[in-house]
Order: sequence, then structure tokens, then C-alpha cells
Amino acid sequence: MQHVVQHLIQGNNSKIILVVLDGLGGLPTDGKTELENAHTPHMDALARSAACGLHIPVSFGITPGSGPGHLGLFGYDPLEHQIGRGILEALGLGMEVGKTDVAVRCNYATYRGGIITDRRAERIPTEKSGLLTEKLQHNIRRIDDCEIILAPGMEHRFAVIFRFPEPLFPDAAAINDSDPQQEGKPPLQLVGSSQAAEKVVSIAQQFLHKAAAVLQNEDKANYVLLRGFSVIPHLLSFSEAYGLNALAIANYPMYRGLAKLVGMTAPDIHGTVQDEIDYLKKHYNNYDFFFLHIKKVDSSGEDGNYDKKTLKIEEADRLLLQIIELNPEVLVITGDHSTPSQLKSHSWHPVPFLIKSPYVLGNLCTAFSERECLKGELGILRTIHLMPLALANAGRLKKFGA
Amino acid sequence: MQHVVQHLIQGNNSKIILVVLDGLGGLPTDGKTELENAHTPHMDALARSAACGLHIPVSFGITPGSGPGHLGLFGYDPLEHQIGRGILEALGLGMEVGKTDVAVRCNYATYRGGIITDRRAERIPTEKSGLLTEKLQHNIRRIDDCEIILAPGMEHRFAVIFRFPEPLFPDAAAINDSDPQQEGKPPLQLVGSSQAAEKVVSIAQQFLHKAAAVLQNEDKANYVLLRGFSVIPHLLSFSEAYGLNALAIANYPMYRGLAKLVGMTAPDIHGTVQDEIDYLKKHYNNYDFFFLHIKKVDSSGEDGNYDKKTLKIEEADRLLLQIIELNPEVLVITGDHSTPSQLKSHSWHPVPFLIKSPYVLGNLCTAFSERECLKGELGILRTIHLMPLALANAGRLKKFGA
Repeated sequence: MQHVVQHLIQGNNSKIILVVLDGLGGLPTDGKTELENAHTPHMDALARSAACGLHIPVSFGITPGSGPGHLGLFGYDPLEHQIGRGILEALGLGMEVGKTDVAVRCNYATYRGGIITDRRAERIPTEKSGLLTEKLQHNIRRIDDCEIILAPGMEHRFAVIFRFPEPLFPDAAAINDSDPQQEGKPPLQLVGSSQAAEKVVSIAQQFLHKAAAVLQNEDKANYVLLRGFSVIPHLLSFSEAYGLNALAIANYPMYRGLAKLVGMTAPDIHGTVQDEIDYLKKHYNNYDFFFLHIKKVDSSGEDGNYDKKTLKIEEADRLLLQIIELNPEVLVITGDHSTPSQLKSHSWHPVPFLIKSPYVLGNLCTAFSERECLKGELGILRTIHLMPLALANAGRLKKFGA
Repeated sequence: MQHVVQHLIQGNNSKIILVVLDGLGGLPTDGKTELENAHTPHMDALARSAACGLHIPVSFGITPGSGPGHLGLFGYDPLEHQIGRGILEALGLGMEVGKTDVAVRCNYATYRGGIITDRRAERIPTEKSGLLTEKLQHNIRRIDDCEIILAPGMEHRFAVIFRFPEPLFPDAAAINDSDPQQEGKPPLQLVGSSQAAEKVVSIAQQFLHKAAAVLQNEDKANYVLLRGFSVIPHLLSFSEAYGLNALAIANYPMYRGLAKLVGMTAPDIHGTVQDEIDYLKKHYNNYDFFFLHIKKVDSSGEDGNYDKKTLKIEEADRLLLQIIELNPEVLVITGDHSTPSQLKSHSWHPVPFLIKSPYVLGNLCTAFSERECLKGELGILRTIHLMPLALANAGRLKKFGA
């Protein structure tokens, strides 16, 4: 739909706020989902007067990762635009990625007599891994005309960006993993399946040789495996697609990174949800779209902690009052996917949403929950439809056809 | 979606049972549909705790045949994969069809002075037609390198398979019907619109000549008309698409044939629904997906017999208890299309379904019916989404993207 929407955009002074309670949707424990169990007077009041429904991030039965989940909320079809593993890892580690970058996930590994004896170098501690990554970065800053940028991750993980002087072709990252996926096998030879990729392979091979030299005296982490070569997807910016000047407020790097991929301003924010809201209020006059990300609802779902997820939803509800008082023309509250604490993981279940605007039927739901939103005026729809709905309610879309 | 799903498959030990009450959906007589009228305590109890909704086999307003109805349930888009009339006829007559076969529907007809005077040979009795088909088969076993296989049908109908020694190109059946569609006209000349089809035409023409010679002394059925040349569609097998080892249990040949097209094991089963269930129980340990087909619900709808359709639904509900007691991880109960007795035919109406699994909201419907399923958590969706949902609920789908 985005290519249709793009041609209907008209500007005005409206404000749109999208609040994402990450992993909001849930499943019942003792009959009630986390959202049904939580005391959420503000969201319930909104739901009574809002347009409600449930959204499907990718398709029925498909469990989305965070990348597809957010792309969908931003109005980009996750089936058309896929974010490579290397890019997502780099974003998650707070790295800036641009059009001249190839990003790759790396593992420290143990290499003996031509074979990989441990693909994760016995999961060396994060602190040790951080020191090694610092040492690698100190010794390897540039290969030919390519800048090498490293970022440490948890345990054996880190990421590398190969930054070239010129923008890359989309097929520049068509390169296999060097990780053999099994211990007792030699690392796989990197092969580029395009001319552009062959150039990247030549840099990556030099990087691997140099890294092995730097790590040669290490007992466990004496080798590096590369996975998920990727370049950033070509996405229209929010400004190009919607004519919106957008601010992302997220205290986790991956979500800032995803927002930057679609051209949002996404400053480094550290702190609580209250800090996020303070930031939003402070910059409310300078933008017309705001994406506010609340992470801990998902984290407690992933931990399988039903009570904590309930509490995190309640906390968000209390703080939401400050957002409501800003009285934006359109306020959307939802999640990027479901994370039932029963499953301790993301899931495929439809995600409840509400759209507060004067231009709705309302009076269909008594509260904000999975089951109440089923009675809402928008039914079950694909996530990518939320942005056009937000734009329409903000008066930012012209008529289609005459 | 199938190409996406295919890459997300992960194996486990779960069991999925799909029970198809053929033609389940209906329309009200005296205010109640057949399903609403039927006493169905087992399905009603399931509906209360299951994920419910209605599915649309092809698209709103489109009445599906049995082929598209079942392809959709199996997760293959019937708009992308069409099953030719000759193939469907052959499957319905219990013929095995393979990759080297062209299947064609045949009519006995009356031919006088260069024109067709009766396209159906005055609907000769089935018994007579069977004898003639036997005689044709006895006299025509092979033409060049092509094996000729006949099967008798009802009245003037039969089917022929031209079995070639090598697999055929998809365009090998691009051949017009020889049936002129009107009496008083000569049969149409067969024309192949591809090189592969021309070879088939040459065999078919020889077949027609030989058949006319065998039938020359017949008064009515002295000629054969050919319709619906077709080859089997290329479909991924259930094993390729879903990693499932699937058993089809159906006491009508067409449904076994459709299941075989997607690689299910589909033994010849004759008998009652109880016999089908006995077979399922006996082989429960050897497969991980079960398609159980219950025909008579549709037949009574086609007969316009509201009371009989109600009774057949009630009978199915009683027998279902044995399926429920197997306690599969996922149990899907639905129809392949609606067959309202009011219409005496298949119809375009959404078909109620329920998915029994621990990973659902539940508590939204009070019974299993068209109107109650509208309150269910899955709304109205295309039939092709049921397989991904079943797989997700069985824990057989990995996350999409990171």
C-alpha cells in the first residue's frame, strides 16, 4: 500500500504518536491474558472511545522477529523488505549503519588443526570478549579502502561493519556464512555470488587472517566465524513516504536502529520510560510523528513472568496519562507482536491496538484487551495498514481517485 | 504464504488432525442453519475453548469446487494452483494419476452423418456404459509408446488417461475439447497449442478413431467426445512444504486423490465414518498429520435435505469424541466449503472452523456454528491461512526474521 499512500500525502500541523508496548499481546493464564489482568484505566478509557482491532504483523500463524514487527508498524511490508541478520545485530549493538556498509555477526571460536573445535569459544565471558574486540579494533582499522568497525556483544558475540567508500549494490552481501554450523569441521570458504560480493569477500578474508594473527595466542577465542552478511534494505524514509518529520524515542539500540532505517531521528536515550516521555514532551513542537518504544513488557513476557508483564503494562498505563494530556490528533497504542508469558517467546497471535481520533465509531469495546479489541470497528488487519489509518485520522491523506 | 512457511518449518513430535465435514457451512431454515440446529455437544465444548473463525476458500462470493476447497485447506492457494477437469474426474473415479499422465473426461455420444446428434448418447445406463468402457479398454491398450487407461463413470461418462513413458511438460495438455457443446454440430478438431500438446493430440486422435471402430455397431453410444485435457499440477508435497508425514483417511476416491496430489498417504478405505476413525486410531503412531474426510454432510446438503444434513452433523459430532480422546496437539474441525441445503449446491459462504490448542484465547464462542464463530478470535480469513495456524499451534514454525 505504501506506494499508493505516498501519492496521497498532504501536509498539516497534526501530531501522531505511536506508542509501542513491545510484545503486548498475550495468552490467558487462569482465564485472563496479562493485558486483561492488568489494571489499565487510561488505556481502557481510550479503548471505549477509540477505533480498536487486532493486527497481524506478517501473516496468520507467522511469529515475527523485532525487525519485521517494527517494519510493519512503520508501514513497510515485512514480506517485501527483509532486514539481514548482520544489520539487525549491528543495530542491536548500537552501531550506525549506512549505505556503504556491509554488517556481519561474528562469533569468537576455537580453531585447532584445521577444524573448529568450539563454535562459541566455550562462551567466553562478555568482559573477556569485550577486551578481545577492543584489541582487534586497535590492530585492524582499515583494509585497502575499507574501514573496519567493531562492536562487542554478549559472551562470544561481536559485530563487524565493513565500511566502503562508495554506496554498495544490493547484492554486495550475497555471501555465505563461514560458520560450518557443526563442531569438528573446517570453517567454510567465503564465496561471493556476485561481482560486488567478491570484493567484500576479499576484504572479509583479509580481516579473518588479520584477526587470527591478533588472536593467535588465545587459548579459546583464537578464531572468528562470520554469519549473516547484509546491507541495509532500501526503504523510503518517513519523510519521503509520508511527509512526516519523525522522532523515535527508544532506550534500546535495536529499536533506535530500526527507526533510523526509515529516516527517523533517533537520539541515544538511556533511562526509564519516564525519561522517554520527558524527552518526547521536550521535543513535542519539533516533530510531527513520534514513535515511543516501551521494552520491558516484552522482556518480562520472554522471561515467562506473567505477573511482571502485568505490572509493566500497568506501569506503562500510568505513564501514558502524560502522553494523553499532550492531546495529539492521533494516538496509536499497540505492540509490535505478541509475547505470551506462557510461551516465553514472541508468538503469532494478533496484537490489540487502539487508534484515538475524533473520526471513529467508538463505543464498541469496554476495555483495552485482546478479546475486547475483537469487538472493535477495525477487526483483524495486517499491521501495515496501521500507518495509513493513522495518517487518514490525522487528515494527512487525500482522496484516491476522483 | 507457503514459500515463506516452508523456510520456517521445524520438526517435533506433535500430532495435527484436520477433520473436514464436507460442505459444513449452511444457511438458516426457520432461523437456524443445519449446524445451529444440530445437537453437537462435543464440537460446542471444543468451540468454547478453541480459536474460532470462518474461512473463505477462494474469495468472497466465489463458490469453490471440491478441488479448490481442499487445496486451500491443505495450504495451497487455489488461485495459483488449479486442478484440471480431467485430473479431477480421474481422481473421482479412483484412478492413479502421475507425472507422465494426461487425463481427459469422456462422454459417449451419438454421431450421424458427420454431426453429433446427442452429446450424451441419450444418457445410456451406467451398466451399459461400464460394459462399453470395458470393451474399449480390451481393444485399446496402447497407442505408440502411450498406455491407454480407462475408467467407467456414471451414465454416459468415463475417463481416459494417456500414460506416456516420460514426464510431461506443463503445457502438454493445452488442448481444446472435442465436444462442440451443442447438438447438430460436428465434433471439434483437437488442436494442441504447444509442441508437447501436439504429440498428445496425435495419440488422442488415434484413440478416437479406434474407439469409433470399436463402437461402430452401437446404436446410441457410437462416438466419444473428449473434454478437460489436463496434467497434474506441480505441488510441493506435504513433506517438502511442511515437513509432515501425512495420512489421508477418506472413503471417497476424489478426496484420496486430492490428498495424493500433495503427497499424503491415502489408502483405499471403504465403509463408514466409524471405519475411518478406526483406521486413524490404528495408524496414529505412524504419521504426524491426519486428514479425515466426512462426506455425507455435503451429500445431504446437495440433496436439499435440511434434516438429513442436521443428522449427519450430529452423527459426526458423536463420533468425534474418539478423535478428541486421542488428544492431538492440534485439532482443526471445519468444512471445505458451505453446502446450504436451501441451495442444494456448494456455495460461497464463509465456513466455520475451530482450532483446538493450548495456545489460544478461547472463551469467545458459546457453540460451534456460523454465527458463533464470527465472535471467535481469528475473524474471517482465507482458507490458506489454516495450515500455517495449525503448524504454529503445533510448535512447528520458527520465527520470521530476527
